[in-house]
Amino acid sequence: MKDGIETRLHVTGDLAADASVELEAGQAHYLRSVLRLAPGEAVALFNGRDGEWLARIAAIAKNRAVLTVERQTRPQRPEPDLWLAFAPIKRARIDFTAQKATELGASLLWPVMTRRTMVDRVNTERLLANAVEAAEQSDRLTVPAVREPVSLERMIADWPADRPLILCDESGAGQGIAAALVAAGPAIRERAGFVIGPEGGFADEELDRLRKLPFVTAVGLGPRLLRADTAALAALAVWQAVAGDWTTPID
Amino acid sequence: MKDGIETRLHVTGDLAADASVELEAGQAHYLRSVLRLAPGEAVALFNGRDGEWLARIAAIAKNRAVLTVERQTRPQRPEPDLWLAFAPIKRARIDFTAQKATELGASLLWPVMTRRTMVDRVNTERLLANAVEAAEQSDRLTVPAVREPVSLERMIADWPADRPLILCDESGAGQGIAAALVAAGPAIRERAGFVIGPEGGFADEELDRLRKLPFVTAVGLGPRLLRADTAALAALAVWQAVAGDWTTPID
Repeated sequence: MKDGIETRLHVTGDLAADASVELEAGQAHYLRSVLRLAPGEAVALFNGRDGEWLARIAAIAKNRAVLTVERQTRPQRPEPDLWLAFAPIKRARIDFTAQKATELGASLLWPVMTRRTMVDRVNTERLLANAVEAAEQSDRLTVPAVREPVSLERMIADWPADRPLILCDESGAGQGIAAALVAAGPAIRERAGFVIGPEGGFADEELDRLRKLPFVTAVGLGPRLLRADTAALAALAVWQAVAGDWTTPID
Repeated sequence: MKDGIETRLHVTGDLAADASVELEAGQAHYLRSVLRLAPGEAVALFNGRDGEWLARIAAIAKNRAVLTVERQTRPQRPEPDLWLAFAPIKRARIDFTAQKATELGASLLWPVMTRRTMVDRVNTERLLANAVEAAEQSDRLTVPAVREPVSLERMIADWPADRPLILCDESGAGQGIAAALVAAGPAIRERAGFVIGPEGGFADEELDRLRKLPFVTAVGLGPRLLRADTAALAALAVWQAVAGDWTTPID
């Protein structure tokens, strides 16, 4: 957080000097009853479009708060365009996946129902709430988009052909992930996505179907059996390190 | 798991054909009361030295079970020699760190007390229990060693000079992690270790002290602020992908 402001909130309205921003009831409650902030105190705001702004509490009451925007503290910057499609898993682990994927810079979270997925409903509002909180705490200037769950077939049909899809292939048949990302060339830095199977893995037919798609690269994540949430965050971290915004700026 | 055996247990005794292995009370309870296994049923055993073996339940009672070892299903293999020194964090997150670090192949877990560490006691038995469970579930043939907590000064004094220490430097001053690991050359594949600060980061004096050590390389994990547990897992995943056993075998 910049300027020593300790509280960052994601808002949906436009941010500009002198703008007035009304918070959601839950955010107002958090500022007033949890943090015990009073009028005049500073909060950082971001909306995914206008960068980060310093704002001050103009008025605060039970479940209601209005802030006045003062000045921009960080401009909006391009961020990695990295999707995460994943078979949903049980509650604590799916919360965790949304939080960690947000810290690791995923731009889209997309639950995908596969043959062996054991969870039949996904609370996408809860996924988004976890992503918002992680974005606020990780100094991100955006919140990842959260899509409604689809079948694997639907995901394949809707996947843009110009976006490399990296299949985390727990069968061990894929190339090592770092070498595969480097071999994929610069296109994979522009936009990419991972698909991660459920705890029981993809079914063989699903793996065959995915591997045959022209935009799919199958990669391996080593000899140990990773839990689905571990695989998701390991894959995102390696992409960021090799192709994303963790690379040392060279040019 | 090999041969369709669904249960894997870590034991301390030697494993060889016809050996008799007595389980700990907790393991016997788990087999009998949770999994409801009966005499004759198969369990996979490993001890970190002798590979993985198929064993069968010879006798089982409340809190007591004896297994007979039949045959080796996997030989012991060399594993990455990768230490994780980390400032301890609160309960759920430290459990999580131990589990995920085990899945990601860390060979040693070492809690280190830094200036801003907010946790003053570490339950190393609990850390080890989390590591054992994760090793059992991830098909590992070893369990990471768990050391007693030490001060950062003590860690530095005890760190072997021939083991590269990679400092996850949240100040942003470090080189990108993947480039730094590649630049470090083949030595970093033989043995290495990471040190991860607490939620509030290292103090400036701590960073200065660490950066000046001849065996330390400072690396960055991108522009977002990562929680301590996320940073630990991301660092281990990138090392495995670039220098460890997730690399595609070339020679």
